Amino acid sequence: MNTLQNLQEQIEDAVNKLQYPVYPAELYEPITYILSVGGKRMRPALLLMACDLFGGDVNAAIPPALAIEVFHNFTLVHDDIMDNAPLRRGKVTVHEKWNPNVAILSGDVMLVEAYMLMMQVDTSVLRQVLEIFSNTAVGVCEGQQIDMNFEQQADVQIDAYVNMIRLKTAVLLGGALKIGALIGGSSLVDADLLCTFGEQLGIAFQLQDDILDVYGDPDKFGKQVGGDIISNKKTYLLIKALELAGVEEKHILDNWINATDFEPTEKVAAVTAVYNGLNIRQFAEHTMQEFADKAFEALNQINLPEDRKQYLRNFADGLMVREK
Amino acid sequence: MNTLQNLQEQIEDAVNKLQYPVYPAELYEPITYILSVGGKRMRPALLLMACDLFGGDVNAAIPPALAIEVFHNFTLVHDDIMDNAPLRRGKVTVHEKWNPNVAILSGDVMLVEAYMLMMQVDTSVLRQVLEIFSNTAVGVCEGQQIDMNFEQQADVQIDAYVNMIRLKTAVLLGGALKIGALIGGSSLVDADLLCTFGEQLGIAFQLQDDILDVYGDPDKFGKQVGGDIISNKKTYLLIKALELAGVEEKHILDNWINATDFEPTEKVAAVTAVYNGLNIRQFAEHTMQEFADKAFEALNQINLPEDRKQYLRNFADGLMVREK
Repeated sequence: MNTLQNLQEQIEDAVNKLQYPVYPAELYEPITYILSVGGKRMRPALLLMACDLFGGDVNAAIPPALAIEVFHNFTLVHDDIMDNAPLRRGKVTVHEKWNPNVAILSGDVMLVEAYMLMMQVDTSVLRQVLEIFSNTAVGVCEGQQIDMNFEQQADVQIDAYVNMIRLKTAVLLGGALKIGALIGGSSLVDADLLCTFGEQLGIAFQLQDDILDVYGDPDKFGKQVGGDIISNKKTYLLIKALELAGVEEKHILDNWINATDFEPTEKVAAVTAVYNGLNIRQFAEHTMQEFADKAFEALNQINLPEDRKQYLRNFADGLMVREK
Repeated sequence: MNTLQNLQEQIEDAVNKLQYPVYPAELYEPITYILSVGGKRMRPALLLMACDLFGGDVNAAIPPALAIEVFHNFTLVHDDIMDNAPLRRGKVTVHEKWNPNVAILSGDVMLVEAYMLMMQVDTSVLRQVLEIFSNTAVGVCEGQQIDMNFEQQADVQIDAYVNMIRLKTAVLLGGALKIGALIGGSSLVDADLLCTFGEQLGIAFQLQDDILDVYGDPDKFGKQVGGDIISNKKTYLLIKALELAGVEEKHILDNWINATDFEPTEKVAAVTAVYNGLNIRQFAEHTMQEFADKAFEALNQINLPEDRKQYLRNFADGLMVREK
């Protein structure tokens, strides 16, 4: 088995070797740019890992793994237009560096390029792989639309929120693992179990992110603590708090949500105090653990040698204690 | 052989039967909307026609033909955002009816849906068909980017212009025919010849469109005569006129191009007079004929019974005398 770090490095090398035409420059330069801005290459590495787990040829899985990375970056380019985001991973976004039209069109061509990379698999799994990839892509689009809807919606429910993060972030992890497993020669049953593992773990990971925003160690978390609170982001914590709040807590939360002129640290402290009074952290951690448990249940059923299952458990544990 | 009209009707029926999920509504309603706005369904009908020409099962070619139509409509949705167009076929555009974010994202999902439809071909041609489709899609994106670049560019050359219209409109006609031929059981050689036929004919057709804008019968053309002149659109006619213009004609053209307050009929008459003085119509018709000739040359080489070639010639003749 390759280490995850080794797989991430293989992806990094392969990304750096991707070549696109020079003309028209406005179409292709943004692709090279956004891919060079980095990221941990976790999604494509998961595809390679799944292939490796079932004894497949990791090298042959590089093009579909790149497809996952190019697809992921396509979603970032288009999401950044929609979210009007000036920065991505500390660098200026494509629509800001060029313009929104360039970002739309280079994003479009990235989606096509992703399919072209994904097609570079053995004919025996071609149709299956493309079906999984397409269904995953549709799910990610649905997740983004639902997320945008939630911004305009006062009464988001926990189940709907979990479904949104499942679609927006978790299905791509599941899809990458499933594709990698099939390329590696797994049965469809095992590929589906690994997909469930990835999807449920992805939801747990996203819930952990919500928790860490408020309760994370600022030195390890790497983001501004309370950033979600300051921006009124509808996280698990806020949705659950609004659900459980009595008249008084509801009043405090509404006041802070509608405040336009405030001291950020004061808002974070006040909202966190409401969360604490309602035991929101415990609810969130409990739900997170439920999804992690579902991930491990699926993992236990996969037909793989125990040492490989342990590898996956270690990977999951590594993700779930993340405080950076 | 089915008539083209019959094939267009088959597509129309199939488009009306396409069903998309109801949730999230903002993602899927625009797809049904833009597909219902109509159009002649020429591109998908060409795919069916090509399949039919080689004796293939037209019914089995409906899903890939729909893929071409969904793809074409995806490009319309995104192009309309980029061009800031309020109307499409007389109806309000998706980004105006909803908003630009909805138009971006529903366009994205249409591209994925197009792939899902295109995959519904026999496994024996699956990889080939998807490669042609992907290359075609990349070409269309390149054409749109080059077209946007030309709007900001003073010195567009005829060759670059022809390459732009080839990519933006003709490659999709060629691609649709090539895919249909292969599904119908043609050899790769014949599929390539039919592709060339479609691509060259598509260029000729677009050049004819440029000519008809100025010289078409207003009763038959169906658009405002001189619309391209009024909007300073860089057509073959304007590019050629700027190339051939002497000092005086250049001065007249530049004045009208830069004029902000003018009587439209006066501008159309003045620019048309310059075109007439430089014999621009003859140059344009000559170039158009060259591309039509290349189309017919390719057609002559296709290994098909004479009556089927005649069917294609009639189809092409019908396109090229169009004055509406």
